[in-house]
Amino acid sequence: MDAEGFWGHRQTTNARATLSHCREWMDRLGWLDNFDRVADGAVLDGRTGWVFSDSEVYKLLEAMAWELGRAPEDELAATFTALVARVARAQDDDGYLGTAFGHPGQAPRYSDLSMGHELYNMGHLLQAAVARSRTGHPHDLLVEVARRAADHICREFGEGARDGVCGHAEIEVALAEAGRAFGERRYLDQARLFVERRGRGSLPVPPLQSPEYFQDDVPVREAHVLRGHAVRALYLSAGAVDVAVDTGDDELLVALERQWRRTVGRRTYLTGGMGSRHQDEGFGDDWELPADRAYCETCAGVASVMFSWRLFLQTGDVRYPDLIERTLFNVVATSPGEDGRSFFYANPLHQRDAVASALDGVNPRAEGGVRAPWFEVSCCPTNVARTLASLSAYALAADDDGLTVLQYAAGVVDADGWRLRIDTRYPAEGRVAITVREAPKDAARLRLRVPAWAEGAVVAVDGGPGRSVRPGWVDVDGAVAGTRVVLELPLDPRVTFPDERIDAVRGAAAIERGPLVLCLESVDLPDGVSLDDVRLTSVPPRPHADGARVTVTTVRSDHSSDGGLPYRPGPTRPEGGGTFEADFVPYHRWAERGPSRMRVFVPREAAASS
Amino acid sequence: MDAEGFWGHRQTTNARATLSHCREWMDRLGWLDNFDRVADGAVLDGRTGWVFSDSEVYKLLEAMAWELGRAPEDELAATFTALVARVARAQDDDGYLGTAFGHPGQAPRYSDLSMGHELYNMGHLLQAAVARSRTGHPHDLLVEVARRAADHICREFGEGARDGVCGHAEIEVALAEAGRAFGERRYLDQARLFVERRGRGSLPVPPLQSPEYFQDDVPVREAHVLRGHAVRALYLSAGAVDVAVDTGDDELLVALERQWRRTVGRRTYLTGGMGSRHQDEGFGDDWELPADRAYCETCAGVASVMFSWRLFLQTGDVRYPDLIERTLFNVVATSPGEDGRSFFYANPLHQRDAVASALDGVNPRAEGGVRAPWFEVSCCPTNVARTLASLSAYALAADDDGLTVLQYAAGVVDADGWRLRIDTRYPAEGRVAITVREAPKDAARLRLRVPAWAEGAVVAVDGGPGRSVRPGWVDVDGAVAGTRVVLELPLDPRVTFPDERIDAVRGAAAIERGPLVLCLESVDLPDGVSLDDVRLTSVPPRPHADGARVTVTTVRSDHSSDGGLPYRPGPTRPEGGGTFEADFVPYHRWAERGPSRMRVFVPREAAASS
Repeated sequence: MDAEGFWGHRQTTNARATLSHCREWMDRLGWLDNFDRVADGAVLDGRTGWVFSDSEVYKLLEAMAWELGRAPEDELAATFTALVARVARAQDDDGYLGTAFGHPGQAPRYSDLSMGHELYNMGHLLQAAVARSRTGHPHDLLVEVARRAADHICREFGEGARDGVCGHAEIEVALAEAGRAFGERRYLDQARLFVERRGRGSLPVPPLQSPEYFQDDVPVREAHVLRGHAVRALYLSAGAVDVAVDTGDDELLVALERQWRRTVGRRTYLTGGMGSRHQDEGFGDDWELPADRAYCETCAGVASVMFSWRLFLQTGDVRYPDLIERTLFNVVATSPGEDGRSFFYANPLHQRDAVASALDGVNPRAEGGVRAPWFEVSCCPTNVARTLASLSAYALAADDDGLTVLQYAAGVVDADGWRLRIDTRYPAEGRVAITVREAPKDAARLRLRVPAWAEGAVVAVDGGPGRSVRPGWVDVDGAVAGTRVVLELPLDPRVTFPDERIDAVRGAAAIERGPLVLCLESVDLPDGVSLDDVRLTSVPPRPHADGARVTVTTVRSDHSSDGGLPYRPGPTRPEGGGTFEADFVPYHRWAERGPSRMRVFVPREAAASS
Repeated sequence: MDAEGFWGHRQTTNARATLSHCREWMDRLGWLDNFDRVADGAVLDGRTGWVFSDSEVYKLLEAMAWELGRAPEDELAATFTALVARVARAQDDDGYLGTAFGHPGQAPRYSDLSMGHELYNMGHLLQAAVARSRTGHPHDLLVEVARRAADHICREFGEGARDGVCGHAEIEVALAEAGRAFGERRYLDQARLFVERRGRGSLPVPPLQSPEYFQDDVPVREAHVLRGHAVRALYLSAGAVDVAVDTGDDELLVALERQWRRTVGRRTYLTGGMGSRHQDEGFGDDWELPADRAYCETCAGVASVMFSWRLFLQTGDVRYPDLIERTLFNVVATSPGEDGRSFFYANPLHQRDAVASALDGVNPRAEGGVRAPWFEVSCCPTNVARTLASLSAYALAADDDGLTVLQYAAGVVDADGWRLRIDTRYPAEGRVAITVREAPKDAARLRLRVPAWAEGAVVAVDGGPGRSVRPGWVDVDGAVAGTRVVLELPLDPRVTFPDERIDAVRGAAAIERGPLVLCLESVDLPDGVSLDDVRLTSVPPRPHADGARVTVTTVRSDHSSDGGLPYRPGPTRPEGGGTFEADFVPYHRWAERGPSRMRVFVPREAAASS
């Protein structure tokens, strides 16, 4: 991708800053030393970090592997090789790899399937190896290590062996990926076993916890909606799609499509964010979508992309890449700061209090409001890194009939004999010019995604007249090398209204522009105006910079100085204040300009005064 | 109190069912055996329960002590005496009492001040002893045991000794109460030390936690609002008022009044419930008051009553007993089921999903929706029990000028030489007839509280003509034995509107009647009508049974079958449905008739269609 495009810029920052940032923090916190201690038989000297800290190392290796495939670089290659060697030394003779269990002074292997994360960790090891294999290194040491680990898992948890699952789903999707990448059907069979075993209440439930947290309450094929811990639920779903597809299990696939529809239709934020609850980092009930306490964990965004992508590949339904785009621009892109060295863990749609200052240490809490360099549970930075480094995988899909362009990013992209040059400043501008550089055969079909929001899009082929196209798919038949297609997506700001059943934002609306959700930050308000007191008027928003200029009015709502409860015998009719223009900025940029309060949904004037 | 009155009925159930219910569960779970194990030096054989399980035993003793004072009963007295003896045996020679630390095989005493709860537990021991002392047994074994424990605490944590506080505030209010009850100034001084030490970041912060959780972020006298764990914050505040009053610390008192005002004005539910977050069982930010995820822990309701009561005694401000009434009727009375053997832990104002069936085992989660017999953390049942048994303490306040009647419950009540007979079916009816049976001197002032909601109240003295009185205080001068005052409180249902800044219930309103918040339960809806689709019309609600009959209309809002996101380019204009009468019932009764969905705040038709 073009280094200066929206995503290219982020990929460059990821390569230049985030990868080393993550490695430095893991070094500082001793998460890398853990591997040396196990290798040296010195675990009793002390192990630091949560039981899942190994997974961060593997996710970093995965990110490095994708990045080395995207833009090879000697220093990164050397770092990668050295880190793989360090990990490999810690592998036990039977293939088990993990620094928290099974060594002198530690609890036995698999003695805490609910919370031990051993299979979860090895799942990320497998995914790193898949990345390495898919980027031209099918016989790398990392691949060898991962295969030994996968073989160990198949022996330990195979048919007739230990009848368990991991409390944090991940191994399922990883085994399925590894099965494909390494041509090992056994891995897929093991993934299927793990998917089928879940939902039968086999996991011991820790205090104050419930089986739902692990999706161990209902078998995957019987569930109607995603529930419990959001990242667990989404990783499990992604793995289950792979299993369904590779085993021809249509019932399972239909169940997963059903769960996606209900989850997206009733449990998903405008940003694409999933997971309403800080408690358990979990999904809420239907319509439980508070803006202020939206958890919307960055990792759940990553996992949602994985789930949708797999459903798209199987069904070809445009809703899946639509949601992927929404999630990439408004969750994944929101997490990392401009510097690539600070991250949001949670991604709320409303920040009530401005956090005083930037953080420079480990952030104990996944509270929103400030990007932090690292977290006690620091799953998100490496998840962002591996996603950005592998982003082009989501841009194109080739099949026998032709090529489908799913996501628009400037640069040159390849897939199955196709090579396209895409010129665009999207999403800052709506024009996307696609030139076919190479095509695998003559006169194939080039299919473009017109996002659901893009009413009024126009497409023109080879300089011909533009024709209006509807959201969904638009086909350009007979594409050959040299074919040039220009898609014009309308970028007028849009006012978006929530379903009536989402109580938390009733009477409010949001402003969107193209794929971007916008927000209003307190730093953009005139002095003395509280974010609580701003109301949207019915004047349509206008484009402004990469956001929108919106006519708003203020109310004076502070009548509570009597110290009574904030409930009154009559409707509050706040006194009207001044009308002014407020600049809404892309949500993914919020809190970049210092401490700020923020809203995505702003109450509407009409609703306020009714 | 009258056994058939609202509160008398609950006190009787408490005595007949709840006390033995609690004792049986503690027996079953081994929480009583823990004391025997410590006494027998057999702790290594195993201790069961959380580190704070001792406190449940002490809260039960406190409830029994108050109940024995209220309505002496031989069997209960014998049970009490036996239980005290069992507890006393476990006391160490130096006065320390606790079953989780400091004995063979256990961590050392005070090795985990943040989460160990040792002082918290002993605080509840002191409160039980205060109850025993105040009900005519100042030299009971329980009092002796508690005094030895308090003496130990003063030695261990006194000036110049160990400079620590307990992660869960409670010992402060307990020491202050004990200091007064036992005439020991040292205990109050120790309470003052604990209050002053907090807020200086001395408590080690556990993983994923913050100092705010313990109120160890800001000194009490510098804070502006309650924050962190709600029960901790409220117990601390109650103790700090006692300290401020008994040491003449006006600055501290003013700080606590300020915190009460802001907390009540911006962080309190219509029910009086406090604590918006399941995460950390904590207060949220200002205006963060979601109805569905309202935590509103029952214990926070109890603690709020304790805090308000102490501020009332010092200031005489009517807002405090107003909030106490609201909290008693809508939080404390909501927790126990009709049987006295099942309880709500959390008290949400909106239940989205109906729980399938009643629970009969230990409930792992403090989720709302169903009353459970016991919880993993089972603080609420015993807290309800001790509050119900001591309820008459909140009814009257006597001073040199006369007597103030704060809460209206049928029965005979005494205070400082006064004896009143109160005849009323309040809150089912608004007429409260008060007859002075005895007065300590001639022609004293009888002061009655007219609740804030009671616009249009009328008072009549000795059969004379009624006169309109405003909410606040109404004085009857020259009351003597035989004086009869009739207060008529208006009980027409009222529509109550939330402050505009509470996003979670914007465009909605609630129905109240007298001191009761009402709610709409799905079991009261016609077949086929979803609670999501009901809208309040502008027709005023009418009284019906002990609730209200309300004209509502329905909308059809289910347009999301396309599987897309629940956000639209235009305002949703749900299709109108039928208009019908819906019966709202008292919130404290909800879920008594089986699984149900429930709302306190219902969207208004006008707001929905704007």
